[in-house]
Amino acid sequence: MAHINVDENLPGIRSLMAFCPATAAPMGELANLLLRSNEGLSMADRELIATHVSYLNDCFYCQQSHGAIAVCYLGGNTDLVEQVKKDYAHAEISDKLKALLSIAASVQKGGKFVTTQQIEAAKELGATDRDIHDTVLIAAAFCMFNRYVDGLASNTPSDLSSYPLRAQQIAEKGYGNHIFSNRQPVPENKEIK
Amino acid sequence: MAHINVDENLPGIRSLMAFCPATAAPMGELANLLLRSNEGLSMADRELIATHVSYLNDCFYCQQSHGAIAVCYLGGNTDLVEQVKKDYAHAEISDKLKALLSIAASVQKGGKFVTTQQIEAAKELGATDRDIHDTVLIAAAFCMFNRYVDGLASNTPSDLSSYPLRAQQIAEKGYGNHIFSNRQPVPENKEIK
Repeated sequence: MAHINVDENLPGIRSLMAFCPATAAPMGELANLLLRSNEGLSMADRELIATHVSYLNDCFYCQQSHGAIAVCYLGGNTDLVEQVKKDYAHAEISDKLKALLSIAASVQKGGKFVTTQQIEAAKELGATDRDIHDTVLIAAAFCMFNRYVDGLASNTPSDLSSYPLRAQQIAEKGYGNHIFSNRQPVPENKEIK
Repeated sequence: MAHINVDENLPGIRSLMAFCPATAAPMGELANLLLRSNEGLSMADRELIATHVSYLNDCFYCQQSHGAIAVCYLGGNTDLVEQVKKDYAHAEISDKLKALLSIAASVQKGGKFVTTQQIEAAKELGATDRDIHDTVLIAAAFCMFNRYVDGLASNTPSDLSSYPLRAQQIAEKGYGNHIFSNRQPVPENKEIK
């Protein structure tokens, strides 16, 4: 059960976003900007970075959710997503993405763990300043999302079959208010904070 | 020098926000919602939580910046802010705020470090669900901001006298586009990403 009184019918961050729609709006916008773009990094690359960081933060809900979205973008290749999550160095992805995942893994430990050598290696493999910016900010943002989800002990569905359906919605429509669409109707006299 | 090509005349997160104004917008909005409110927690409480988490994350820029803003709200009481940063248990603050700082410190380690006992203790001292929500999200958000600032090695002014001036601007006007006001003029042919 969550640490605060949220709608237990909603999974993970969705219950927290329904509890506080005001902060949900910029968080959803940030997720859209960082994850729903093919400029430089592809949407699949971005979700793989988010998934790997969520795995390192041991956030079950986020790693399952974003892993399932990555699977959507990668034509159903579940094995590749699992490999990137747990051992990206041996996954069939580009060396550039491996270099960026290495930077993301350092960010997960703390900002100062990122080294000039990691940055130079990524640049030599073709990463632009924007790619590096987005990688660091995706990793940093998931250090927020993961802590939000687990710090409030939000409800994490253990039924893995529920994740692909929600992932498909996001792969089609992006992150936004529609993620509350499976929210229970709210009685008229119940105020939503 | 920063890992990417940012305006070195701008300090810390301001240089990154100028590099990528698109993501700066929701991040600024989130900061405003979380820090510029006296609903439940005061603005001083909120900045103290942000400062303590930034201290734990060893982010010099953020702990100096937000510590200076807390000082503005606390009538210039620098000693109190330093005490909360480094040893809040012995600071002259309410027991409720101490309980919330304890939760924030757990969030800094990782979401799963927050215990039911910590939550119950805070509730017994008068913390509402909204107070606990805001504490966890402020702590989580600073795990993002701190990593963004240090993960890209943004320029951190070592001259401590520069922080109070910027703090005063924020204490008066909040977080928003005005924080770019000391940005150098951009030549017309230079695209801002």
